[in-house]
Amino acid sequence: MSHILITSGPTREYIDPVRYLTNASSGRMGAALARAALELGHAVSIVSGPVEVDYPAEAALFPVVTTAEMAAACAELFPHCDGLIAAAAPCDYRPHTVAEHKLQKSGHGLTLDLTETVDIVAGLADLRQGQWLVAFALETRDAHFRAMQKLQRKSCDLICVNGPAAIHSADTRVSVLDRNGMVVGEFMGDKQAVARGILDVIERHLVRGSATA
Amino acid sequence: MSHILITSGPTREYIDPVRYLTNASSGRMGAALARAALELGHAVSIVSGPVEVDYPAEAALFPVVTTAEMAAACAELFPHCDGLIAAAAPCDYRPHTVAEHKLQKSGHGLTLDLTETVDIVAGLADLRQGQWLVAFALETRDAHFRAMQKLQRKSCDLICVNGPAAIHSADTRVSVLDRNGMVVGEFMGDKQAVARGILDVIERHLVRGSATA
Repeated sequence: MSHILITSGPTREYIDPVRYLTNASSGRMGAALARAALELGHAVSIVSGPVEVDYPAEAALFPVVTTAEMAAACAELFPHCDGLIAAAAPCDYRPHTVAEHKLQKSGHGLTLDLTETVDIVAGLADLRQGQWLVAFALETRDAHFRAMQKLQRKSCDLICVNGPAAIHSADTRVSVLDRNGMVVGEFMGDKQAVARGILDVIERHLVRGSATA
Repeated sequence: MSHILITSGPTREYIDPVRYLTNASSGRMGAALARAALELGHAVSIVSGPVEVDYPAEAALFPVVTTAEMAAACAELFPHCDGLIAAAAPCDYRPHTVAEHKLQKSGHGLTLDLTETVDIVAGLADLRQGQWLVAFALETRDAHFRAMQKLQRKSCDLICVNGPAAIHSADTRVSVLDRNGMVVGEFMGDKQAVARGILDVIERHLVRGSATA
């Protein structure tokens, strides 16, 4: 039995007390991965941004809002885990400054200066002591090429590639690439079936230590 | 029996195919107002941004994503309605340009130039032919003062004032102000009870035509 850390859902980066930048990640893929991991007898911890999805009660849930909060929660849990599945869609940009009060319309628009948020998976890769890392890449073009860049930048063992149609949808389509860019799994259909396929690849390549990559 | 148009939920303004500006409006207040209006025997049409809430099946539902789409749907329905309750939290800013593909991290942050979106209620006020208008104001300071400015700018009959604690919460606290700045209703508790209170004020002041404001 392994202890698997799963990140799930979006994060939010507030520009004032009401408005924020985010994406439509529903947490459904994270919930499906958690169920699939539990079915295989693993222990699961989930760090999740704000979502409406029902996570399995057997998983330990750590709710967060911002990308920095997600990074901090993961950094605390990761040393006690055997592997990471980074299914969250953390917000990549945050405003330089957050307005203390709700911004009022001025008639003149608004210029937002945004800073890139921390790369959660790359940060955990720096902390790894034998853990395996599986990331997700959601790309709108040159998907495999960009996913491989991401895998290298984040020092992952496997990367799951999907498109924007997967967001907030019941169905999805995922290709799993290894460090050599080989497609080691290709799954399509409802997210629970796809999650089982991904966990099967993880089980064979990473958990049982038979990875050749 | 009146036909009441209710706007509900947030809107989204995408900056690329994945990321958007929004707020945490859940649509719960809109759903509660719809149920309260139906209980009083009115017909209800709801124009709603993306939410997970269950709207009553007896209401006609018109789903939208952006503020411009919400404005367009409302402009089409409004001439056939007797009044408007604007409970939505439309996104007030949209990017000048929307990136065709997912923005890639460059290491250098991002500057977003935002334009103010259309004021849906003010736009409908220009189209009114005897309809009454009720708006919501969510303020983080000087709530009554700012709400009265909003009521005047949007030419509303009543304005419901609440604070950011109401967003995505089961409970809320609402003060209803008339055109003279008089508090004509004050409600606290779960959103369904508050919605019934607001509908009662609307019924007395606007539907039965006994408004003195």
